[in-house]
Amino acid sequence: MKDQHSSGQNGTDVTVIGLGPMGSALAEAFLGNGRSLTVWNRTPGKADALVAKGANRTTTVAEAVAASPVTIMCLNDYTTMYRVLDSAGGAFEGRTLVNLNSGTPAQARAAADWAAERDLDYLDGAIMVPPPLVGHPESVFLYGGPRDVFDQNRATLALLGDPRYLGADPGLAVLFNTALLAMMYATLNGFLHGAALVGSADVPAVEFAELALGWFMPVVLAPASLAEQAPNLDEGVYPGDLGTMEMNLNALEHIARTSVEQGVQSDLPRLMKELAEQAIALGHGAENYFAMFEVFKKSAAETGGSR
Amino acid sequence: MKDQHSSGQNGTDVTVIGLGPMGSALAEAFLGNGRSLTVWNRTPGKADALVAKGANRTTTVAEAVAASPVTIMCLNDYTTMYRVLDSAGGAFEGRTLVNLNSGTPAQARAAADWAAERDLDYLDGAIMVPPPLVGHPESVFLYGGPRDVFDQNRATLALLGDPRYLGADPGLAVLFNTALLAMMYATLNGFLHGAALVGSADVPAVEFAELALGWFMPVVLAPASLAEQAPNLDEGVYPGDLGTMEMNLNALEHIARTSVEQGVQSDLPRLMKELAEQAIALGHGAENYFAMFEVFKKSAAETGGSR
Ligand SMILES: NC(=O)c1ccc[n+]([C@@H]2O[C@H](COP(=O)([O-])OP(=O)(O)OC[C@H]3O[C@@H](n4cnc5c(N)ncnc54)[C@H](OP(=O)(O)O)[C@@H]3O)[C@@H](O)[C@H]2O)c1
Ligand SMILES: NC(=O)c1ccc[n+]([C@@H]2O[C@H](COP(=O)([O-])OP(=O)(O)OC[C@H]3O[C@@H](n4cnc5c(N)ncnc54)[C@H](OP(=O)(O)O)[C@@H]3O)[C@@H](O)[C@H]2O)c1
Repeated sequence: MKDQHSSGQNGTDVTVIGLGPMGSALAEAFLGNGRSLTVWNRTPGKADALVAKGANRTTTVAEAVAASPVTIMCLNDYTTMYRVLDSAGGAFEGRTLVNLNSGTPAQARAAADWAAERDLDYLDGAIMVPPPLVGHPESVFLYGGPRDVFDQNRATLALLGDPRYLGADPGLAVLFNTALLAMMYATLNGFLHGAALVGSADVPAVEFAELALGWFMPVVLAPASLAEQAPNLDEGVYPGDLGTMEMNLNALEHIARTSVEQGVQSDLPRLMKELAEQAIALGHGAENYFAMFEVFKKSAAETGGSR
Repeated sequence: MKDQHSSGQNGTDVTVIGLGPMGSALAEAFLGNGRSLTVWNRTPGKADALVAKGANRTTTVAEAVAASPVTIMCLNDYTTMYRVLDSAGGAFEGRTLVNLNSGTPAQARAAADWAAERDLDYLDGAIMVPPPLVGHPESVFLYGGPRDVFDQNRATLALLGDPRYLGADPGLAVLFNTALLAMMYATLNGFLHGAALVGSADVPAVEFAELALGWFMPVVLAPASLAEQAPNLDEGVYPGDLGTMEMNLNALEHIARTSVEQGVQSDLPRLMKELAEQAIALGHGAENYFAMFEVFKKSAAETGGSR
């Protein structure tokens, strides 16, 4: 079965460069969907299993890129991507590069400029699932870059999961990835800090989880009710009639004090308290807690952060 | 309709002391369920609406406590509770006090000792919902103190919401409350920090919310999948085969660096990064992220925290 895209001169639909755990999973997903595949990896032996399933292994990066209209890069970082592609000499004209390594938005934007100088169409993506979930239709992949390049390659990218187009800025995928991970770590830390607090009174984490995850998180922190606040963030409107920043600061002081009293980690609650104090100093004392958005949008220097 | 508990000498089922927004909601819930009610508040006028609905208002605190077998206290803090009850002289023998103000576990334990000296049965509780949700069967109220005192008053307390008994330690309700709020603020901050990160590239919060709350939180941070980790926390077992602390530190460094690059709040991600570094210094580098529990269980001084 072939998709609507034409194969490259040397006959394959798609090329994957970089066969670590993630690149290998991407390659498997293409093969599993009946796509003809070219692969290249610094350590060639990592392609053995793929070659046994019909993949075409090239000796040089130049051959690999030439083999397909689109090349997926899945290396450890941007520096390696430059190094690997520069070794190919640069005969990339008309090819599309989809880069999936992690990095910062600035690195992604620089990579897009670098690709433009080499006549490469370029998308920068972020993979939001671990290797075993690659190829599932719900597995989210984020992309930024020219809309037409995304549209031309959407069918190919859809073989890896659920491709979401974020916009023309090539830094967007990495930026969203970073933002979602920031949310993830903050949430995990909150759960672990809570478990540590009750653990200081010998309550098992399993018992905390029952209440914290069985009731509190799904009900009080329901994603749908948080989402209702998003338009207010965009408008900068934070009505304090159901609870003010001053009240929240009070609660945060309790949390910090209790963490100290119970002998558990207190840097995190103390920082949360300081951030609420910054919100009040910025004039948000009578607004609701979502006014913290105004603090988070600014650098620490702008809000009088102490660190 | 009367419940199974006997009314006090002066004939009411329950007394509520403190008629701020929360105490008034508690009183309304009792009246709405047909319970006979006595109330006292420093500012007596706040009882007018309740008296109009049949509540008994007393002039003194002593009369209020004497009127019912159980008195619910809903004042602003513990200091006020002592002041108010001490003004009553102390003829409380055989009465039950259920205290619902916020505070720290140490304050709750001191209050239990204080009550014991005055021959008062004592429960310390925490209200996990705002006033408008008082009286709904799913609204969680937490309680700590003697099991038999809780059991004797369960039917009365069930009129306010869903009473959850946590154990004999009177500090537990306040401690769980603090732990759940710590989790809430951490999670809200994570969402707001993420929204600020994408906002730095002019992405509206509404667009971030679609992905962050419409997909990421319910799927990647699903409460049920977090709950699966709880037994591992209790056993201190953090297998790193699907991802190590070193890998997470890498991601946290990306987040901190990107926050600086994009000019948004970077104290929070930098602290998260430092905490992961502490976990590695404690020997958890090859374990998974939940090994952070070992950091959160210790005071900053014990883990080499810098603040
Ligand atoms: N694994 C995940 O769960 C996951 C999830 C989301 C995103 N990602 C991202 O996906 C990308 C790939 O991750 P990964 O897990 O597959 O493993 P990785 O260790 O990040 O990358 C391994 C790949 O990079 C190559 N490489 C490293 N240094 C090189 C060099 N100097 N020259 C040429 N090639 C070099 C390796 O080649 P050799 O085989 O020759 O060493 C291998 O192909 C990373 O950016 C990662 O952040 C991974
Ligand atoms: N409101 C909520 O959403 C909520 C949610 C969960 C828990 N709580 C907890 O419930 C408790 C009560 O909260 P609240 O919202 O009703 O309002 P609050 O402002 O915390 O407390 C008001 C009550 O305290 C009394 N009071 C204050 N200082 C006093 C003094 N020196 N002497 C005598 N009485 C004094 C007030 O009497 P006057 O009327 O005479 O001023 C009023 O009855 C607090 O501990 C709060 O943390 C509240």
